[in-house]
Amino acid sequence: MNPKLLTLCAAACACTTPAWAQGSVTLSGVVDLAARRVSHDGTGSLTALVSGSNASSRLVFSGKEDLGGGLSAGFHLEHGLLADTGLPASAKFFDRRSTVSLASQSLGELRLGRDFVPSYSNWSRYDPFGYVGVARSANLVSATPTGPIRAAFGSNANTTVRSDNGVQWLLPAGLGGLEGGAMFAPGEGGAVASGLARLTGLRVGYANQAFSVSAATTRSKNSQTTAGSFRDSAVGGSVELHSVRLSAAWREFRYDSAKQLLWMLGAVATFGLHEVKASWIRSEHQGQVGGASIAGTDATQIGLGYVYNLSKRSALYATVARISNDGAARYVISDGPSGISAGGRSRGYEAGVRHRF
Amino acid sequence: MNPKLLTLCAAACACTTPAWAQGSVTLSGVVDLAARRVSHDGTGSLTALVSGSNASSRLVFSGKEDLGGGLSAGFHLEHGLLADTGLPASAKFFDRRSTVSLASQSLGELRLGRDFVPSYSNWSRYDPFGYVGVARSANLVSATPTGPIRAAFGSNANTTVRSDNGVQWLLPAGLGGLEGGAMFAPGEGGAVASGLARLTGLRVGYANQAFSVSAATTRSKNSQTTAGSFRDSAVGGSVELHSVRLSAAWREFRYDSAKQLLWMLGAVATFGLHEVKASWIRSEHQGQVGGASIAGTDATQIGLGYVYNLSKRSALYATVARISNDGAARYVISDGPSGISAGGRSRGYEAGVRHRF
Amino acid sequence: MNPKLLTLCAAACACTTPAWAQGSVTLSGVVDLAARRVSHDGTGSLTALVSGSNASSRLVFSGKEDLGGGLSAGFHLEHGLLADTGLPASAKFFDRRSTVSLASQSLGELRLGRDFVPSYSNWSRYDPFGYVGVARSANLVSATPTGPIRAAFGSNANTTVRSDNGVQWLLPAGLGGLEGGAMFAPGEGGAVASGLARLTGLRVGYANQAFSVSAATTRSKNSQTTAGSFRDSAVGGSVELHSVRLSAAWREFRYDSAKQLLWMLGAVATFGLHEVKASWIRSEHQGQVGGASIAGTDATQIGLGYVYNLSKRSALYATVARISNDGAARYVISDGPSGISAGGRSRGYEAGVRHRF
Repeated sequence: MNPKLLTLCAAACACTTPAWAQGSVTLSGVVDLAARRVSHDGTGSLTALVSGSNASSRLVFSGKEDLGGGLSAGFHLEHGLLADTGLPASAKFFDRRSTVSLASQSLGELRLGRDFVPSYSNWSRYDPFGYVGVARSANLVSATPTGPIRAAFGSNANTTVRSDNGVQWLLPAGLGGLEGGAMFAPGEGGAVASGLARLTGLRVGYANQAFSVSAATTRSKNSQTTAGSFRDSAVGGSVELHSVRLSAAWREFRYDSAKQLLWMLGAVATFGLHEVKASWIRSEHQGQVGGASIAGTDATQIGLGYVYNLSKRSALYATVARISNDGAARYVISDGPSGISAGGRSRGYEAGVRHRF
Repeated sequence: MNPKLLTLCAAACACTTPAWAQGSVTLSGVVDLAARRVSHDGTGSLTALVSGSNASSRLVFSGKEDLGGGLSAGFHLEHGLLADTGLPASAKFFDRRSTVSLASQSLGELRLGRDFVPSYSNWSRYDPFGYVGVARSANLVSATPTGPIRAAFGSNANTTVRSDNGVQWLLPAGLGGLEGGAMFAPGEGGAVASGLARLTGLRVGYANQAFSVSAATTRSKNSQTTAGSFRDSAVGGSVELHSVRLSAAWREFRYDSAKQLLWMLGAVATFGLHEVKASWIRSEHQGQVGGASIAGTDATQIGLGYVYNLSKRSALYATVARISNDGAARYVISDGPSGISAGGRSRGYEAGVRHRF
Repeated sequence: MNPKLLTLCAAACACTTPAWAQGSVTLSGVVDLAARRVSHDGTGSLTALVSGSNASSRLVFSGKEDLGGGLSAGFHLEHGLLADTGLPASAKFFDRRSTVSLASQSLGELRLGRDFVPSYSNWSRYDPFGYVGVARSANLVSATPTGPIRAAFGSNANTTVRSDNGVQWLLPAGLGGLEGGAMFAPGEGGAVASGLARLTGLRVGYANQAFSVSAATTRSKNSQTTAGSFRDSAVGGSVELHSVRLSAAWREFRYDSAKQLLWMLGAVATFGLHEVKASWIRSEHQGQVGGASIAGTDATQIGLGYVYNLSKRSALYATVARISNDGAARYVISDGPSGISAGGRSRGYEAGVRHRF
């Protein structure tokens, strides 16, 4: 073999830096920005540039090391950013995820650190809008109006999406479609103002190319939950019909005698480079908080979206959504004007660009 | 062809991680530190280690995706840092720029997110010191003393450099030297304390290897600008004479009946690895703020600098500068002692190391 | 030579992005998480997930440019993170280090920016636990109880580990084992509340494969140290006996008439993939603060650890430690319950995963 060629090829390899040459870090992310206009009954309209309406803007440092024998170690540090202003999405720089993992092909993954809670993972996967944008199901998962979330957490960080201090065990792939995991987080004192909660959660499901079903439950306690645990349960399923994915999910937040129920129906149709998405979500409050009934603060949200995929990484999109509040409910599409009349409607539409890297 | 060689070359390629193999992210930046001594009439001297005197210390994540047909998508996330302390330069982590772009070779670039405003871009390009260091023109673009900037923004973030929420259209390259762009940012409520402003700006210019001319104007409104828009206009030009670049620029800030005028003359001479730079800047205030005349709070700054380029990426540099205040003006070179006597002189010199990566 | 092969090899090289192709940036770091339980006499126990017990969780951007003739330029930006929550370890994003360097093979390195102080470097190298985890010597380097550290810095950032604004000269390698450096930091006003201090430090040592000895001293002044400098001195040594490294170190903090003395004995035994570590540390206070004697607030800490190296990059580990306070001393193992009874014992144990990338 030609020695010159060997040298040249070696040089080709050496022109990467050591860290990458070891394949130890992958740098990836999303920058997504959209122009949004939101109108609330009683308070008018507001136009804004917003970050992350198709996928949350983020910067990810991750990596995996093959330890041999089916074992691997890995890490994942994910920063959420607001690309409209350059601000971090949270005081927690790696708010989206900060974990270290030890994984076995046969026994599954031990994952330590901040991550999604099981009930969230089991709900957002069935939201055609992935919990983001004007039509996100997150609009109805809110501490306003008063319900079980507010009763358990006030306006502090809650455990409906992520938890600090997670110790998770996740089922391995290759169990014939069976999937799931368990999560535990120590309370570390459980100060609600610090976002601390003692948390336990479980998720189990089955997925193949034709359909998926799964159920999850998460319980958390903090210094404010003196009347028992805050319970967050979710059940959902999806089915693939040709190029259309239909999904349905149910979620319940419960604390003391207060309950919030969410039902979601979703559809995503994919035709070549085009995607059309729709969702219908209903939220109902039941029971009492502090002796006062919360019944009647219900709402329905509908969303319709279109995505044009310029490539696997880049897309243009447009979405419209409307929330219809019942009774005294004041749910709103985010990034609108301040406030809404009780029982009013919130409408929003947006168009944007999403780029993955 | 030798199959072993093919394998070897493939391995050479595979030794980079997927994200980079796709060419999707470039990581670059600057770390620049200098020792600086600043003296103010009336308040003495202070020695400091300062960040970014030749080029602002920064960390940049950027990338571009070729979409075919002359179309591309890209992103740019740029963090400013103070390398003397490790602090972020701003609460906005990606304060320097956070944008997503869709660009066409024939139609230009649509760029969304936080970025420079047109008037700034058109001014700083003619500052031999690039708006940084003891001799930066930024010393005279200050909310102190009271003038149009303070009248419109108080001591909050202003739009003399960057804007959040920008929607920009930038002319494509290949228009025979013509360059420019337009920027719009929705006010999103326009709360001055939050740095929010409704902004419109325009920049147009012509540049070739021998000379450049350009003009820009930017208007912004916020919750404090009840007497109309804050207007920021800049006109400048440069000419290349052998190895010397001469530049001249004019900038005007105007709000209500208050006006600030800036004139700048600059020169950069390059001889092999050596660069010598000089600038003269004059600032004048005219009109009134709150019924009181601001006339007479004028100042002149002169700066002289030397750069020794160790390589394209690394340099040693030294700069001296002096501000002469007129009347009651109290402009200062930054990172000096607190305060200066009215009409006093501020002197500064520094020497440092700049490294690009 | 085959032109196709040349093209292929060139392509292999080109598949990395420009920044890395220049070899200008290395991205590396650590994610380390452990479950810890700490008990304090009088206040009970607390279980927590904690970050960085084997090595501090971090993200590092660094690079080096060969300038020819034995000269190089480089930078190092190191972020500390708390992987249990995703929070930055400090408001200073690049709190662990942010420096630019100019280095000569014969003359040594000029390093500017935030970095470790000489006395810290000379102490932590002899701590088998590297200043982290339940058995870290840092437990006894505390502003509580009152001693010279608290007298000089209050509860503000102190200079026992790092300093902003450092100007360092470090001896080059290749001096036959001689090592060392000098550090200076201007006070920049020296406001103790801002963590500012005027600092000077010196470190000198000798190391070969069989043993090391070194001594360092660091002095700092701030707006609170009106009675002279805060002085931080350290002397230590280590010896390699087959697969066991034994170390001993002494450190003294002194301010005005207050003194804290630390003695540390350490051992690290390495057998293949296994490491066993042990340390004994004694802290004594002498003299007075504000006219009151601080004598008797002494403590002894012992630590024992085990590390199983899954690879060069990944490890499992477990550590136990105990602090025995004398008199009114209230030193604690960190991340335990709030408070401890005077003279009480603090016990902690932890098990975790450390992954380098």
